[in-house]
Amino acid sequence: MKSFREELWFQTEERRDYINITPQIERAVTKSGIREGMALVNAMHITASVYINDDESGLIQDFDEFLEKLAPQGKPYRHHGTGEDNGDAHIKRQLMGREVVVALTNGKLDFGPWEQIFYAEFDGRRKKRVLIKIIGE
Amino acid sequence: MKSFREELWFQTEERRDYINITPQIERAVTKSGIREGMALVNAMHITASVYINDDESGLIQDFDEFLEKLAPQGKPYRHHGTGEDNGDAHIKRQLMGREVVVALTNGKLDFGPWEQIFYAEFDGRRKKRVLIKIIGE
Amino acid sequence: MKSFREELWFQTEERRDYINITPQIERAVTKSGIREGMALVNAMHITASVYINDDESGLIQDFDEFLEKLAPQGKPYRHHGTGEDNGDAHIKRQLMGREVVVALTNGKLDFGPWEQIFYAEFDGRRKKRVLIKIIGE
Repeated sequence: MKSFREELWFQTEERRDYINITPQIERAVTKSGIREGMALVNAMHITASVYINDDESGLIQDFDEFLEKLAPQGKPYRHHGTGEDNGDAHIKRQLMGREVVVALTNGKLDFGPWEQIFYAEFDGRRKKRVLIKIIGE
Repeated sequence: MKSFREELWFQTEERRDYINITPQIERAVTKSGIREGMALVNAMHITASVYINDDESGLIQDFDEFLEKLAPQGKPYRHHGTGEDNGDAHIKRQLMGREVVVALTNGKLDFGPWEQIFYAEFDGRRKKRVLIKIIGE
Repeated sequence: MKSFREELWFQTEERRDYINITPQIERAVTKSGIREGMALVNAMHITASVYINDDESGLIQDFDEFLEKLAPQGKPYRHHGTGEDNGDAHIKRQLMGREVVVALTNGKLDFGPWEQIFYAEFDGRRKKRVLIKIIGE
């Protein structure tokens, strides 16, 4: 069994952002030399998500409005008793998920026609990381 | 390390449907000959989910009503600016998740007493796929 | 490829509870002797979750209030037609997720600074299990 590890770093200008990271994951898969296996891609921070959906700007706005309606920024979350102001971001991240696991077949991400991997930032404007771990042969 | 890949195809009659695919996954596990490892089961489309819960018709209706209340069909989602009418389906899929990863032990799905794998369709009436990828030994 | 399996057992005193199980997962990783690979940690019951977020009591209360608002206990769920009273717990579990997959690097959980693994119980006061399955080398 072979394994491969790489980190991606992000510092968004906005508090919330949605970034298509599929090209970076594809490059990591190629670099790994692994042809059959699984790739785990996860946010290493607990106010960000990695998810798979369509790269369409209207849809991304729909996601953002949906999340903001369910867990609005600026509400007096109990978590703010610690001095933090990002209670909304922790909840948004739970709804969108921490990680994706993607099959590798013939050295490529084994994807349907519209699957794209996104990094979703809910409390940005500082350095944060995504982990890529690939295992297989 | 061995690996195994199979696709399942679906074309539901209704726009939304919930299908127990555990028997198909069990058959794939047997066919793979893999006894210790992990099985990834994921929707290959971005308006459908694979999830694990109980096979009980009342519960499935509870899920459906819950999802329809949070992300109703027919609302003027921004995604519809593309000509699509399935903004609700993209959001429902995010809430129910894209994939499950299941342990394989002694050549079987390593499940608790009530775990069943479901394909959840939120924009059906056309051909869509689920990917099964198994790795192990 | 090596594989390792262990179960954790829980019986909470309250109906809902949130338990940091990171130390148990770390011990399992050490016991497994696996240095590079993936650890799957999943609830074996369908009214409980395994998720990764911060170990902060205010945040945990925020999660609990959020889930209770979206899927309140005691509502007349259709699932209750079976004699069960835990429709809320099935929905809460879907929102928080069934499982996490964590990378193992150099024999350790490959975590960001605040990642902690939680068992979330939504219908407790009886014996329930979590599965740890590790594969790698």
